[in-house]
Amino acid sequence: MTQRNLFLLPGDGIGQETMAEVRKIIDYMNAEQGAGFTTDEGLVGGSAYDAHGVAITDADMEKALAADAVLFGAVGGPKWDAVPYEVRPEAGLLRLRKDLELFANLRPAICYPALAEASSLKPELVEGLDILIVRELTGGVYFGEPKTITDLGNGQKRAIDTQVYDTYEIERIASVAFELARTRKNAVCSMEKRNVMKSGVLWNQVVTETHKTKYPDVKLEHMLADAGGMQLVRAPKQFDVIVTDNLFGDMLSDVAAMLTGSLGMLPSASLGAPDAKTGKRKAMYEPVHGSAPDIAGKGIANPIAMIASFAMCLRYSFNMVKEADNLEKAIANVLDKGIRTGDIMAEGATRVGTAEMGDAILAEF
Amino acid sequence: MTQRNLFLLPGDGIGQETMAEVRKIIDYMNAEQGAGFTTDEGLVGGSAYDAHGVAITDADMEKALAADAVLFGAVGGPKWDAVPYEVRPEAGLLRLRKDLELFANLRPAICYPALAEASSLKPELVEGLDILIVRELTGGVYFGEPKTITDLGNGQKRAIDTQVYDTYEIERIASVAFELARTRKNAVCSMEKRNVMKSGVLWNQVVTETHKTKYPDVKLEHMLADAGGMQLVRAPKQFDVIVTDNLFGDMLSDVAAMLTGSLGMLPSASLGAPDAKTGKRKAMYEPVHGSAPDIAGKGIANPIAMIASFAMCLRYSFNMVKEADNLEKAIANVLDKGIRTGDIMAEGATRVGTAEMGDAILAEF
Ligand SMILES: CC(C)[C@H](C(=O)O)[C@@H](O)C(=O)O
Ligand SMILES: CC(C)[C@H](C(=O)O)[C@@H](O)C(=O)O
Repeated sequence: MTQRNLFLLPGDGIGQETMAEVRKIIDYMNAEQGAGFTTDEGLVGGSAYDAHGVAITDADMEKALAADAVLFGAVGGPKWDAVPYEVRPEAGLLRLRKDLELFANLRPAICYPALAEASSLKPELVEGLDILIVRELTGGVYFGEPKTITDLGNGQKRAIDTQVYDTYEIERIASVAFELARTRKNAVCSMEKRNVMKSGVLWNQVVTETHKTKYPDVKLEHMLADAGGMQLVRAPKQFDVIVTDNLFGDMLSDVAAMLTGSLGMLPSASLGAPDAKTGKRKAMYEPVHGSAPDIAGKGIANPIAMIASFAMCLRYSFNMVKEADNLEKAIANVLDKGIRTGDIMAEGATRVGTAEMGDAILAEF
Repeated sequence: MTQRNLFLLPGDGIGQETMAEVRKIIDYMNAEQGAGFTTDEGLVGGSAYDAHGVAITDADMEKALAADAVLFGAVGGPKWDAVPYEVRPEAGLLRLRKDLELFANLRPAICYPALAEASSLKPELVEGLDILIVRELTGGVYFGEPKTITDLGNGQKRAIDTQVYDTYEIERIASVAFELARTRKNAVCSMEKRNVMKSGVLWNQVVTETHKTKYPDVKLEHMLADAGGMQLVRAPKQFDVIVTDNLFGDMLSDVAAMLTGSLGMLPSASLGAPDAKTGKRKAMYEPVHGSAPDIAGKGIANPIAMIASFAMCLRYSFNMVKEADNLEKAIANVLDKGIRTGDIMAEGATRVGTAEMGDAILAEF
């Protein structure tokens, strides 16, 4: 039987509650479908800091590296606002991305039909929206050196962050975007600030070259990142796949996620390069939303983004396409039935908590 | 009589046409109100490159430095997409900002009541919207060194941009934001990525300290820039003044501008520090929109953003508060009468060109 080895990192805040719902699905798949998932669990973020004084331990990093896939909840919260920069909750997430070399972050921004009214945009602008943001995740200003604060004397300090991109980093993320576009509407829009940033100039050149030599069949457009933000707000349906750097991807994917009205529902996948021998990619799956400390522990968080992240895991890490489709369909069915957590509550719908939502999805699965 | 010395840089694309409408207003104020404006005019962007091979000449820079205020149209267009980086159209704009030390960029995002329907957001979310984005304009990744592309051999290049902020740069822009908040709803939201960037950590510290020591009466909130982008889309009216760095300000102010549905209407002011002797600030005023090459030369561009930028000039550079108020009222009146350029056309409105729009505003002034 295939061994399928998952490492769970629920993290902080609502991460615990939402991960519990994924565990139900894993247990069900093992019991009823012989899926053969094995799971182990670790600490990340504030919970790792509280237990061990770091944002993730080396031992847990080893487990993440050894797993077929990592499922990640969320990190952070006001409780850890004052911890030192090096061990702040986000450092755990950033180390996972970097050490697993998860350079490709896939962030679908889709608008669930049942939720079009929840968007702040006019419904006709977001109904049927289906964008995929492909964000570079291991380079740019997130990891470039120097990254320092220096005391200059006279009460003055100087902070420096460095945006660095090499050709190969841009080429591999562009290739991921073009490949994915071929399975969708075959259109890529690349976003940078080539009018201000040298990294934008190189980004633009390498994407153009990759397109010309390897993917001439895909439609390619370039947009300045600020104009891209505007166009996302003005007419999001013009986009299919958007490819952009780490920091612009952070901003633009959050804007895109909010447009859909489905923020509590959106999953993401972070993928590494295929292994030369086995063809397997390292991978981590996590909701786009954060740890929501204000509602943590109340049993009311929406587990759908976490469950949908597990569906992406089934699809991308285990090639369990039918199971992934079924799980996504189960989510859509539950929404169509008017079953809602508080964040997506609508008139006439049935309000449920985290566990009931998980159960309802499992019942449809 | 007061001498009021204006330097006009219409630039490229629709910059020419829209500046012509401001010239009418200047002529009128000189003739009818003895305003005593003197004007000179220069080249910037692609038009400067075509004439002189640079994005702005030293001679024009001298004039900009000597003027009481600079009025700037727009730069750029596909015609100059392939010119060398150092002399691309935007380099003229960036040199003006840097050499005039215009560190404070004020970008109001207001929703003209007559245009609430034009927003892609639901009207109730933007009706009455009045945000002021205060963007740092002479620091950060726009100007930090190194800023290079290096050939590494093996077909690999490395691009580097550097984000640098010193304490005093953050302090002075924060002070501008707090001062302006006091004239408005007394609330500032500071946005950065302190969870990822050292410059975000320092930004957060200095804004907090400036608030505590000099502006404790103002309400201060901190938000991560990605969450800020989300909140702008979700519920923009929660904000009064937003203060942020050069790059985040570029992205966030464009998103905010697009929210209003009034993109073709939004002005901006870029201000320097008050002169130690005279108290005068160097200043440049420009529309938020770009050069719109697709409609340039057709006489259909909306001149309102350029005229509203001149209103800001009257207010901030010449303390002509009554005249600024009147000019802004004239714009609102013309809109209320249903006079519209193509970009803001609505059913039942009267469609006019650039010159008629300018004339209509002048008639109400
Ligand atoms: C938590 C934070 C470090 C992270 C990021 O900035 O990448 C988050 O905003 C995200 O988008 O996954
Ligand atoms: C034209 C460009 C250099 C400029 C910028 O990035 O600052 C523009 O987008 C702006 O916001 O004024």
